[in-house]
Amino acid sequence: MEKNIEISLLFDFYKPLLTESQQQAVELYYNDDYSLAEIAQEMNITRQGVRDLVKRSENLLFAYEEKLGLFKRFNLIENGLDEICSLAQNIIDKTDDSSAKSNAQKILTFAEGLKE
Amino acid sequence: MEKNIEISLLFDFYKPLLTESQQQAVELYYNDDYSLAEIAQEMNITRQGVRDLVKRSENLLFAYEEKLGLFKRFNLIENGLDEICSLAQNIIDKTDDSSAKSNAQKILTFAEGLKE
Repeated sequence: MEKNIEISLLFDFYKPLLTESQQQAVELYYNDDYSLAEIAQEMNITRQGVRDLVKRSENLLFAYEEKLGLFKRFNLIENGLDEICSLAQNIIDKTDDSSAKSNAQKILTFAEGLKE
Repeated sequence: MEKNIEISLLFDFYKPLLTESQQQAVELYYNDDYSLAEIAQEMNITRQGVRDLVKRSENLLFAYEEKLGLFKRFNLIENGLDEICSLAQNIIDKTDDSSAKSNAQKILTFAEGLKE
């Protein structure tokens, strides 16, 4: 079973919509890099049971994103804020206009804050 | 049954997570301002059935927001982008520095784009 990098990202986002055992399996498999056998031992279920649990969770995470598209939307915003930060930094670095510099500094602070 | 303004906003956000009949009932009740009796006729179910459907949908929408908090997060971003736009506009209006003006214009365009 191949690990899909996108799953970790979607999991960060939609984790609360999974059941507790789904969360635990995905957490161990994707974030803590356990093998299926190790998770089976940890969760006291069969290796096939773990595989099903992870597979089901992956499908759910993809389905939530397919329906809501919020991860994609947040990503676009994140990238846009990066652009805004670098443009504001550019104003701060280059202008002699103190009012423009101060407003650009406020923009930078806002945009950095929104990225968190 | 009182109409809750927040429901319309949450519905815009989490609508795809409701079933088709839940979506239809909320749509008619909140967006098209139908009465429960009118929806009952439209959907060919009892008035009590409509009430239950709307109530259940409201609870689901609140529960999704409680778990994910994405509506709140988007709202914060929206407000921050408004601030960024007005600061950028302020730079554009006041500075004689053409490079700062041009970068502020780009910031404004980016921030407006992200709000959509």
